[in-house]
Amino acid sequence: MSGASPLAGKSAPHRVERKIPMSDDLIWGTHPVMAALADSPDKIAEIILVQDRKGKKQREIIDMAASRRVRLHFCAALRLTGEGAAEARHQGVVARMAAREFLPFSDVLTMASQAIAAGHSPLLVAADNLNDPRNLGAIARSALAAGVMALIVPKDHCAPVSGLAAKSAVGAFEKLPVCQVTNLAQSLKALKKVGLWNFAAASGAASTCLYDADLRLPACVVVGGEGEGIRPLVLRQCDWRIAIPMADGVESLNSSVAAAVILFEARRQRDFAPKAA
Amino acid sequence: MSGASPLAGKSAPHRVERKIPMSDDLIWGTHPVMAALADSPDKIAEIILVQDRKGKKQREIIDMAASRRVRLHFCAALRLTGEGAAEARHQGVVARMAAREFLPFSDVLTMASQAIAAGHSPLLVAADNLNDPRNLGAIARSALAAGVMALIVPKDHCAPVSGLAAKSAVGAFEKLPVCQVTNLAQSLKALKKVGLWNFAAASGAASTCLYDADLRLPACVVVGGEGEGIRPLVLRQCDWRIAIPMADGVESLNSSVAAAVILFEARRQRDFAPKAA
Repeated sequence: MSGASPLAGKSAPHRVERKIPMSDDLIWGTHPVMAALADSPDKIAEIILVQDRKGKKQREIIDMAASRRVRLHFCAALRLTGEGAAEARHQGVVARMAAREFLPFSDVLTMASQAIAAGHSPLLVAADNLNDPRNLGAIARSALAAGVMALIVPKDHCAPVSGLAAKSAVGAFEKLPVCQVTNLAQSLKALKKVGLWNFAAASGAASTCLYDADLRLPACVVVGGEGEGIRPLVLRQCDWRIAIPMADGVESLNSSVAAAVILFEARRQRDFAPKAA
Repeated sequence: MSGASPLAGKSAPHRVERKIPMSDDLIWGTHPVMAALADSPDKIAEIILVQDRKGKKQREIIDMAASRRVRLHFCAALRLTGEGAAEARHQGVVARMAAREFLPFSDVLTMASQAIAAGHSPLLVAADNLNDPRNLGAIARSALAAGVMALIVPKDHCAPVSGLAAKSAVGAFEKLPVCQVTNLAQSLKALKKVGLWNFAAASGAASTCLYDADLRLPACVVVGGEGEGIRPLVLRQCDWRIAIPMADGVESLNSSVAAAVILFEARRQRDFAPKAA
């Protein structure tokens, strides 16, 4: 050990190190992270923790995160990079804060049923398996522009609502209510009970053409990630599968593009289509 | 090992790492390389693959390359270098493409006027100031899906049609004709002469709402980059400015999203709208 070179730790290939660029949405160090867990767990997008630390504080953080249902990721080592990183003593724990407080799902249900009772037709978006933060952010930006009431994301099958996602959202996360749920399939079931119809963006034999779907109904549009799409249990809670008609030989669209095309078709049908006779 | 020099990992002769400088003719990542192998194996100069990867996708690439007689080179490790290399996730596979042939603008004019003469309504896209390669690639992907005839890009005010753009295009550049022009304003003028109408994606007081625009006409949709938008001389050659109606407080959409919303509205009007009485 005493003979190790200054760069030995850096170049060793077996060491899986998580590099986190400094940004405004980060909190680091055991005490600040515990304070955030105590005061505003709803604002924490995720906590990244070095696995092999054995301290009492680390165990306390794990317990607090578990009881408050905050996402916890472990890594072998972590390193902050970029401006200010050298002075940042992270003590093996970093929390990434959401751009805003998450909206409780009970509030989403209340807002949606009140809107329906008042004769409006709420439009919601749910993202499943959206692991690319850029796409998640782009969906938030388009959703806000299309007049969506809230974005619903599952806790464990979605990129964190922060960092790169917030960058791609270009401010949308500050304005669009975001709701994080533990079980998306159950949440969609609850939405149906208050009068919404779930539309899955999914092509296939059982799909309806987007332009034949009635998106004037109170609706939640469910969008999947590019790789894995929507999980089967989530898909089972969808009333319709809708497909964007595409030219021959093209299999799919970028998922944020697909979301936008569907959301703006909903907006067209609601506000710009000639009323049926 | 403990006495190894700081540079041991880098200079060790047994470690054969292939360094590939970033350039316009590279495609990287399993999915983009597989798309290129499926669609245009004749355009692939060679594929460089990390030897010890055991994934299903890697085996599929080897099989596809063998059956299509594409040159395959193995290396122990590979590293992209130079500008843009840090963001390029190559997943252990890189394809070097043969120089791509752009469609001459005279061919675009011929194709468009022949289509109009045959009673069809060609749809084209032109991108101006599209400096983000991801957006350029995403536009190509959406354009292909929406049935666009060709993508027109200016030589000096556009990200290169390669690298990151090709990755975001997920194979679209192998199928969609791309035309590179020196003077986009002059090209748009020429398109008008053969019977096309130029629609600029541009919000503002002089803009028509997207849903009031008649996109069944032979059309070229002109999209600008997020920062600078469409250049004034290019905008002057546009017959209409069309705006996507957005919720209050939202200024703009991602430019690839805006392009897709307009292109699929054109597709809806052409193929899915009830015919006017």
